[in-house]
Amino acid sequence: MPDSGLEHDLDSVQEHLDEVQALFARAKEFGPIDSVNVIPPEDLVALRAKLDTLHSADVALILEALPLDERIIVWDLVRAESHGDILLEVSDAVRDSLIASMDPDELVAATEQLDADEIADLAPDLPRDVLDDVYQSLAVEDREQLREAMSYPEDSVGALMDFEMVTVRGDVTLEVALRYLRRLDVLPDHTDQLFVVDRDERLDGVLPINKLIVNDPEVLVSTLMMRDVVKLTPGDKAQDAAQAFERYDLVSAPVVDRNDRLIGRVTVNTVVDFIRDQSESELLSQAGLREEEDVFASVWKSLHNRWAWLALNLITAFIASRVIGLFEGSIEKLVALAALMPIVAGIGGNSGNQTITMIVRAIALGQIEVEHAARLFRKEIVVSMLNGLLWGGIIGVVAYLLYGSVQLGLVMTLAMTLNLMLAALMGVAIPMTMLKLGRDPAVGSSVLVTAVTDSGGFFIFLGLATLFLL
Amino acid sequence: MPDSGLEHDLDSVQEHLDEVQALFARAKEFGPIDSVNVIPPEDLVALRAKLDTLHSADVALILEALPLDERIIVWDLVRAESHGDILLEVSDAVRDSLIASMDPDELVAATEQLDADEIADLAPDLPRDVLDDVYQSLAVEDREQLREAMSYPEDSVGALMDFEMVTVRGDVTLEVALRYLRRLDVLPDHTDQLFVVDRDERLDGVLPINKLIVNDPEVLVSTLMMRDVVKLTPGDKAQDAAQAFERYDLVSAPVVDRNDRLIGRVTVNTVVDFIRDQSESELLSQAGLREEEDVFASVWKSLHNRWAWLALNLITAFIASRVIGLFEGSIEKLVALAALMPIVAGIGGNSGNQTITMIVRAIALGQIEVEHAARLFRKEIVVSMLNGLLWGGIIGVVAYLLYGSVQLGLVMTLAMTLNLMLAALMGVAIPMTMLKLGRDPAVGSSVLVTAVTDSGGFFIFLGLATLFLL
Repeated sequence: MPDSGLEHDLDSVQEHLDEVQALFARAKEFGPIDSVNVIPPEDLVALRAKLDTLHSADVALILEALPLDERIIVWDLVRAESHGDILLEVSDAVRDSLIASMDPDELVAATEQLDADEIADLAPDLPRDVLDDVYQSLAVEDREQLREAMSYPEDSVGALMDFEMVTVRGDVTLEVALRYLRRLDVLPDHTDQLFVVDRDERLDGVLPINKLIVNDPEVLVSTLMMRDVVKLTPGDKAQDAAQAFERYDLVSAPVVDRNDRLIGRVTVNTVVDFIRDQSESELLSQAGLREEEDVFASVWKSLHNRWAWLALNLITAFIASRVIGLFEGSIEKLVALAALMPIVAGIGGNSGNQTITMIVRAIALGQIEVEHAARLFRKEIVVSMLNGLLWGGIIGVVAYLLYGSVQLGLVMTLAMTLNLMLAALMGVAIPMTMLKLGRDPAVGSSVLVTAVTDSGGFFIFLGLATLFLL
Repeated sequence: MPDSGLEHDLDSVQEHLDEVQALFARAKEFGPIDSVNVIPPEDLVALRAKLDTLHSADVALILEALPLDERIIVWDLVRAESHGDILLEVSDAVRDSLIASMDPDELVAATEQLDADEIADLAPDLPRDVLDDVYQSLAVEDREQLREAMSYPEDSVGALMDFEMVTVRGDVTLEVALRYLRRLDVLPDHTDQLFVVDRDERLDGVLPINKLIVNDPEVLVSTLMMRDVVKLTPGDKAQDAAQAFERYDLVSAPVVDRNDRLIGRVTVNTVVDFIRDQSESELLSQAGLREEEDVFASVWKSLHNRWAWLALNLITAFIASRVIGLFEGSIEKLVALAALMPIVAGIGGNSGNQTITMIVRAIALGQIEVEHAARLFRKEIVVSMLNGLLWGGIIGVVAYLLYGSVQLGLVMTLAMTLNLMLAALMGVAIPMTMLKLGRDPAVGSSVLVTAVTDSGGFFIFLGLATLFLL
């Protein structure tokens, strides 16, 4: 945070944003904002001064909340030294729009100031030649780290780690360790513990800074250090590391290689960002949005982001439509079937999604495994039967009252119960099968269960009706 | 973490869990596990010894992954001193089951050991008389804190804060501050900064521990402290505080009252738990699950958890069914309508939910406000028209090929385009209206848009067909 003498409260970012938006609103009264020239120079000076005092995360939020033209005007006013930090903070969609507005020299300058692990985070979005230039400009050690950081997949601990760990030897006193720290002038952010290593850089334990402070300076580091350490390896899943941070309330954790040599660390701020990103993308993928969509993105980008999901759902809807097509003769004879069939299909989809959601959550939290399948099937089938008799019974009575046919009411009740049972079966079977195949049960389970309960619901209801009513 | 000399890696919890499950599996070969007596005594001894070495978060995970009978057996083996910590770690559903198995004395003993803010977290789940007993047993200061912590709503900073802050005066040297810390023996977890207060306990600034270590001991605290501090108040929304932690990479933050007096602090581990809980409940509520459901919960509890959602969706499905009922005459004449109508309704629901998801996210992140509505409407309407012409066109051609009627194909294309536009309109209007009314747009928007696009889709398609085809 800049030491501007200002005090932060939680509304202050919103206030800054409101001011920036008010500035553009005033300018817009004189015409469209197509270049920086339409804004009064004194407003620009004031805006630049304000941006200089803000934390890069706050500037990032302002940029995200502005439409493209205004965003680029603000971006050009931000001082170049902050460009790198801000690019790290903004969402992917907004980052693309900012990078597209910069020329290669500006991009190289913005990127060079960053740490190797941060450059690695930006790398996928940078033009190839910019990345090459940045790589050439780095010191040997930094190049090594950049290569290392870029070599791990996005969802691994290697992608979360940084290289700013402070190490000490176990055979020195706290006094010596403290003197060493004083020589560093500033400690890296989130240094809550020192990593104790031997002469081969192998991790022996950790020494919490708080222990360093409260204990007698004459004591040896090795006496006080904790050996029971949560150790990560770069190939561990980021998801598992995040759970360890949550479970053990960590601020930082060491990352070691196969030979137990310390190669980096993961800090809680990175983990918080990871958790947030992950829950965002879970929510987005449930609605079939492939990536975070900048609300001010172009129509073309929005179409691209959304089309796959619509296509997939059209295919499943088309299959359901063909199932109905099989029974057109029955519907012609008893048109009430057309009005009632969406109820049967709909309740199956809703109930199946409830089962899926619960089971996918429990799998993610490590609470259930493949062996529990039988028990879960039994329970869900009973729940769905009871739901079917209850809700199916009510709708059956309503159908009888509307159409005056007891048989129609009974068919409705039976069809709803059977489709709910089908939903329960699929709601357990789909995620458990994905688990068994080693795939992520969160992806695609929901579309699959809805496809089955839609087509299945129509088939069951129209099939029973054809058998018993016609 | 217990200083057991063991090393943690990320799989170790899972291994412990597997061992416990294997133990019960062996016991089950001799009959149902209805009491602790069916388990060989030597197994119980080994299990108890293992549980004693585990972190309470790991024991919590094991308890969550066991069916009720086995869970209670393990719970009774856990040493009583850990009961309080473990109750804090487990999910709400599992906590209920554990509390139900304990008698009042055990519960009072488990709760008494906790800090005031932790007791406040458990309080809603404790029987009234247990809570009274615990309250009586507390020291005056702790009672005050418990009352304070319980007085704030669940989603406020007051509910997240603890009282373990370390304070210093600004007019002392670092040397004096360090000597004061040494007298404390241990610092509270997550003490990354000292809170600098004046003699009225008003917050002047914060001194990061890392600055305390690396600077000259003769310097005054007030010279080094940072005045630009993120300050929370107990009435702030927890959600906003979490965003501040993410944005500024905080480990702890002070909480002050209206007169700027320091009353507590919030730490990043609490924030991580809050973020996780929140994203869980968002995912659950999207499927209409009212609370986290223990996968091993009884059938009755599951029914109770799920019924409201099913009832709500049945009502909307019933309304859609009545819309179809209006056009039974048309369907009787042209039965192809019955097969095609779910496609029109379905694509509207999918597309509307994409729009809603995107806008609800952007609102939550503070990127859009009520004034942006017009711009968003324009964009979404254009996107939906293009989607309608594309997908509606394809399905229109398919309908023509299937049923040999050009007019039917054209009606299909037009109906899909109109329903997608309706979905876009509602996808923007519903969350923006909720925002304007000061309500949470994440709750209920999705059901509403689906209800409108279902009934609307049937009405548009069957209405157009009645006008142009019959």
